Amino acid sequence: MTIGSFYPPQRTLMGPGPSDIYPQVLQALSRPTVGHLDPTFIGMMDELKQLLQYAFQTQNAFTIAVSAPGSAGMEACFVNLVEPGDKVIVCRNGVFGERMRENVVRCGGEAVMVDNAWGEPVDPQRVEEALQANPDAKLVAFVHAETSTGALSDAKAIAEVARRHECLTVVDAVTSLGGVPLLVDEWQLDAVYSGSQKCLSCVPGLSPLTFSPKAIAKIEARTTPVQSWFLDQSLVLGYWSGEGKRSYHHTAPVNSLYALHEALVLLKNEGLEQAWQRHRDAHQALKAGLESLGIEFVVEEAHRLPQLNAVYIPQGVDDAAVRATLLNRYNLEIGAGLGDLAGKAWRIGLMGYAARNENVALCLKALESTLK
Amino acid sequence: MTIGSFYPPQRTLMGPGPSDIYPQVLQALSRPTVGHLDPTFIGMMDELKQLLQYAFQTQNAFTIAVSAPGSAGMEACFVNLVEPGDKVIVCRNGVFGERMRENVVRCGGEAVMVDNAWGEPVDPQRVEEALQANPDAKLVAFVHAETSTGALSDAKAIAEVARRHECLTVVDAVTSLGGVPLLVDEWQLDAVYSGSQKCLSCVPGLSPLTFSPKAIAKIEARTTPVQSWFLDQSLVLGYWSGEGKRSYHHTAPVNSLYALHEALVLLKNEGLEQAWQRHRDAHQALKAGLESLGIEFVVEEAHRLPQLNAVYIPQGVDDAAVRATLLNRYNLEIGAGLGDLAGKAWRIGLMGYAARNENVALCLKALESTLK
Repeated sequence: MTIGSFYPPQRTLMGPGPSDIYPQVLQALSRPTVGHLDPTFIGMMDELKQLLQYAFQTQNAFTIAVSAPGSAGMEACFVNLVEPGDKVIVCRNGVFGERMRENVVRCGGEAVMVDNAWGEPVDPQRVEEALQANPDAKLVAFVHAETSTGALSDAKAIAEVARRHECLTVVDAVTSLGGVPLLVDEWQLDAVYSGSQKCLSCVPGLSPLTFSPKAIAKIEARTTPVQSWFLDQSLVLGYWSGEGKRSYHHTAPVNSLYALHEALVLLKNEGLEQAWQRHRDAHQALKAGLESLGIEFVVEEAHRLPQLNAVYIPQGVDDAAVRATLLNRYNLEIGAGLGDLAGKAWRIGLMGYAARNENVALCLKALESTLK
Repeated sequence: MTIGSFYPPQRTLMGPGPSDIYPQVLQALSRPTVGHLDPTFIGMMDELKQLLQYAFQTQNAFTIAVSAPGSAGMEACFVNLVEPGDKVIVCRNGVFGERMRENVVRCGGEAVMVDNAWGEPVDPQRVEEALQANPDAKLVAFVHAETSTGALSDAKAIAEVARRHECLTVVDAVTSLGGVPLLVDEWQLDAVYSGSQKCLSCVPGLSPLTFSPKAIAKIEARTTPVQSWFLDQSLVLGYWSGEGKRSYHHTAPVNSLYALHEALVLLKNEGLEQAWQRHRDAHQALKAGLESLGIEFVVEEAHRLPQLNAVYIPQGVDDAAVRATLLNRYNLEIGAGLGDLAGKAWRIGLMGYAARNENVALCLKALESTLK
């Protein structure tokens, strides 16, 4: 066995994530590692918390990054908020709603499913009906931006329905954070998680997470222990808390947190609204080009995510062969379909640093040449 | 709020981890991100698996890195191997044995504690007695190298006892991997987890993990679902498996895996035995110097970890003030005491890249000057 250093190719990442990383983020990533209790690092974490509050548009004191990918952020919400026997309304319109159901069940909760077809947004009216039929429900869980289909749901409307029925909300904002408006406080969302590797254009491996005071109150009122030690947020808070002495929970992923800090500084400097507009602009340019190639979108125009464009593979086109050509000839990655859309759709990401004219141009020209 | 880029100081890391990172590892970390299903990345993961098998000295097909810190590696072992009602012998001689107990209980298992004093190794005879008293035990869990005390336990002897009683072993090798002999196959250990940020001198955030065929068989024979979706290793295996098509589970922490790959290439090039010897040599040099300063070790000589030196703080010395001086004047981090040893001991790490003459010299001279 002789294995040498690994030198990856320089790809353009326009799949469902990881997205293209900001060069400044890769630089930040490789800065000298300090101890996870170093005073300079603790200062950095305090800033990171403020930057995450900005990105989420929240004043929630509990706003951190879970030391693991978005899937662990999802699990952190459910293991902390669901107690055995709790009834949870779970909205499912793609892969990640189904994953939420899995989480609820593994926590000993009861999942009541509200289904919409793949590619459709969650229908708040169906959520209303499910809550009327299940007045004992404690939580409503839904995906804001479905990465598997490219559909955007109306988080504000769903949260209003949940609130009328005195339910807390668990919101998957993995693909929405930084790409489309997400106003945690204004919309009164309770537990919201995201991922570092989508519209923040940071490396994968971290999951931004915020809990409202109401979510914290539910956690504090638990009568059963959280089943996960690693994701028990009452323990994690002892480390992230700025008040008094920090207690050791686990070793923070120091360098990855540098990278997330840098990605959020870039977002703050650009401004959230400007970032949202940039995603919309890139989407419009991509859309015009795709339509002129005769390629159709999976999602109705009104509910399309600008940052994740799920489009039908044209009739007679070899899915894998096209993606291989894009990768091998243009170093361009676009995403395959997932779940119900496997083999039927491509997912073209315009997330974060990838939402640029040069990316759109490359993607359109490479697709045009490959499909000829 | 004006927050700029974060520029950490250049520290010398001689605490309990993270340890000094190899410069080559930081370079690898910042290479261009590729997709987590990119063919080049999948090839890198296959190499990484082989390199981990070398580091663990195992042929176990299930040898991966959990996409989260060592605490999650610990939890991955327990959530997969413990079913509700399972009795687990848990050896406790420091912080991490107690954390194992927490994990067992949160999985619905019954923990039978085998205690040794802090600073002592686990006594295999006590494990034998516990197993005789609990013939229905399914697992024996212990910490190979206790990071909180610097004590090395005899993993081979404990595993032999467990095997005689038909128990599987769960072994915490967070601080031992790469620093002292750890022979997973020869000692017939069943579930062994580690961390990236100790003697591998990689950035924190990943947990190498290996399961023996017997551990896999126990997982396959489960009658209850694994309570964690994120850490369900039967799902994770679908992504790491080299056979056939990879299925998506979660987005791998691409860049951190580059770094681990590089750290393991460095370990392979040096050779495990040479790395163990280097740790012993650095320890001998540190020990001689500390003794000449009148500083005493917590652990008896026969059971000391070369890579983690827990020493009593000399009488009348201000713990926090000394560590602050080392940090501020010399950019040198040593570790505080943890748990029972908080305020009583320092923990001086000589892990991986930190096990070098220049580190020993700096530490001894800085301590000598500060203690004067």
